Amino acid sequence: MSFCSIDPGARIGSNVRFGHGVRVYGNVEIGDDCQIGDFSVIGHPTVREGSSPLKLGAGANIRSHAVVYEGSEIGPYLETGHHVVIREGAVIGENLRLGNFSDIEGACQIGDFVRMHSYAHVGRGSRIGDFVWLFSLTTLMNDPLPPSHLADPVTIGDMATVCVNAQLMPGVKIGRGTMVAAGAVARGEIPAGVVISGPDGEIAGPIRFVMHMESRTRHPWHRHFADAYPERARSRIAALGAEIDAEAAAVAAL
Amino acid sequence: MSFCSIDPGARIGSNVRFGHGVRVYGNVEIGDDCQIGDFSVIGHPTVREGSSPLKLGAGANIRSHAVVYEGSEIGPYLETGHHVVIREGAVIGENLRLGNFSDIEGACQIGDFVRMHSYAHVGRGSRIGDFVWLFSLTTLMNDPLPPSHLADPVTIGDMATVCVNAQLMPGVKIGRGTMVAAGAVARGEIPAGVVISGPDGEIAGPIRFVMHMESRTRHPWHRHFADAYPERARSRIAALGAEIDAEAAAVAAL
Amino acid sequence: MSFCSIDPGARIGSNVRFGHGVRVYGNVEIGDDCQIGDFSVIGHPTVREGSSPLKLGAGANIRSHAVVYEGSEIGPYLETGHHVVIREGAVIGENLRLGNFSDIEGACQIGDFVRMHSYAHVGRGSRIGDFVWLFSLTTLMNDPLPPSHLADPVTIGDMATVCVNAQLMPGVKIGRGTMVAAGAVARGEIPAGVVISGPDGEIAGPIRFVMHMESRTRHPWHRHFADAYPERARSRIAALGAEIDAEAAAVAAL
Repeated sequence: MSFCSIDPGARIGSNVRFGHGVRVYGNVEIGDDCQIGDFSVIGHPTVREGSSPLKLGAGANIRSHAVVYEGSEIGPYLETGHHVVIREGAVIGENLRLGNFSDIEGACQIGDFVRMHSYAHVGRGSRIGDFVWLFSLTTLMNDPLPPSHLADPVTIGDMATVCVNAQLMPGVKIGRGTMVAAGAVARGEIPAGVVISGPDGEIAGPIRFVMHMESRTRHPWHRHFADAYPERARSRIAALGAEIDAEAAAVAAL
Repeated sequence: MSFCSIDPGARIGSNVRFGHGVRVYGNVEIGDDCQIGDFSVIGHPTVREGSSPLKLGAGANIRSHAVVYEGSEIGPYLETGHHVVIREGAVIGENLRLGNFSDIEGACQIGDFVRMHSYAHVGRGSRIGDFVWLFSLTTLMNDPLPPSHLADPVTIGDMATVCVNAQLMPGVKIGRGTMVAAGAVARGEIPAGVVISGPDGEIAGPIRFVMHMESRTRHPWHRHFADAYPERARSRIAALGAEIDAEAAAVAAL
Repeated sequence: MSFCSIDPGARIGSNVRFGHGVRVYGNVEIGDDCQIGDFSVIGHPTVREGSSPLKLGAGANIRSHAVVYEGSEIGPYLETGHHVVIREGAVIGENLRLGNFSDIEGACQIGDFVRMHSYAHVGRGSRIGDFVWLFSLTTLMNDPLPPSHLADPVTIGDMATVCVNAQLMPGVKIGRGTMVAAGAVARGEIPAGVVISGPDGEIAGPIRFVMHMESRTRHPWHRHFADAYPERARSRIAALGAEIDAEAAAVAAL
């Protein structure tokens, strides 16, 4: 820790390590065992949400050049890449992982164990379930008549996967366990357990048909990828996965 | 202000506030009442434009981790998100607002009251009118035969709207009040007051047909969104909007 | 140099200039005549590759807010824009140029004289030849069944050009001298010296048909653009260009 600026009003847990040149504003509660990377700004003031503090859960690893606003509640074990922005009013669950240059706009709700890759843009007011994946350059919009005062944010169900470059149009509701393919544009209400692809966001088929031929690996991902998560998440993955499988089977039967 | 590096050659107005760790180079004139965010770099040297200074108008609010080069003239009330880059040789009007991670390349002309969202990429030499909107991930190209020495920058008319993920191909001219829809690719000369959509950039219809059904809100946006601007902009919006409506009506009559 | 944090274990060549607030970790070897921009982080620790140092070749110009990990070998004359990230395990040739906000994930191989523009995202394990161009917002993927443990990175041949917003799907092999047009999606094995376009990545024709009408400039680019490179690269461009022309002619003859 060198050349940092830590406001004496900030409440900081035990075993918190600060990198080089970090700035921590006063309206902040940082849990135990957090690590704050070089040149990060924690608790950035906002004009929007007033005075509620940033509550950052224990065990966070925030990499360099991050900006996290006051007025958000973030569960334990946040892990970020470099140069991320998290705005005010977010309510975020356990162990969110953000890629480099991710941009989480204000007032979002994000569940547990969500993973985002580089340049994910989560528009203001988005609602994201548990175990959701957003790959690079995915965009979650919210203005149905841009520019306007209207707001129609995106909703993404648990265990959904949104692939590279996908566009989620304002108001879209992505069903649980559904995959939006790379470059697809998703609109409207999309059922659970399907694959959406192309510029018209058409249903290409059920997620269980998606397979990698060479390795004979088959989706949904929770069948072959649960070991990528911490031990404590696995029983939830199994239970939630079974629930979603049943929901997807019911959709497919229609 | 702490751990800043302010070159004594920099000319700095009254009531300018610096964040933590800011660097200001010498070839800079900063107007009154500006706010420069943490870890920003103001007046970054360039090899291209030589010695003209960065002139930053009064009332700017530059958020953290910004980089603004020498050799640009920026009107009053600039407001930026975090991690923006503005290169040399830009001529920028009043109250530009930039989203996080915007990238304004060199020698651009940008009018008054322009708004950009996250990851907007404005290629070198682009010409942007007044009250233009560029949403997230819009790209303004300039090389018609990449890579080459040729340069054919983009021109965008007043009050045009470019939605998420749109690609403006080199040399495109977007008419006033026109909307480029999300994900569209725009080429060639595009008339005023229309909507362009899809990978071939086809004209989908006049902008006045674009409507949000639930709220019965109808474009063009200047009819229902002027209150999103500062008071001083409203009479200009009304006058310019009327002019563009007339131009669009003439186009539609063809 | 002010407010820097330079680990005494770092091995630093002669005539190395540090900007304001730079952090250099200990596991680093920096060549002569390098310039490290303000607020950059050099030799960022990684849990993945253990203890091999960052070897940064002579003459590098790393602009502000960069993050370069330990465990990579980077040839001479690296030049970066602002806010770039280069992860561990990369092997990079001479005179790589990176645009602002580029994101080079781990374990990539990148040849000599490669140029990338803003927001280029190079997925883990990508293999990129010499004189390759990646324009803004190009994405090189690597997971064929996201999310999964599978890895099928992208391979790009020498002198290939990947235009704005192109998506390179996992496992794609781009032939030498080939161009992927703006917004195209490339899959599978693509021959040398062709142009790929559209969402299905179809071959639009041989690269030598690509021409800028007004200026009568014609591809391949190595015929008219070699002077954009340093003198020392030109004979290699000529030799490699001739080789690729022959390969492309053989492809076209099929």
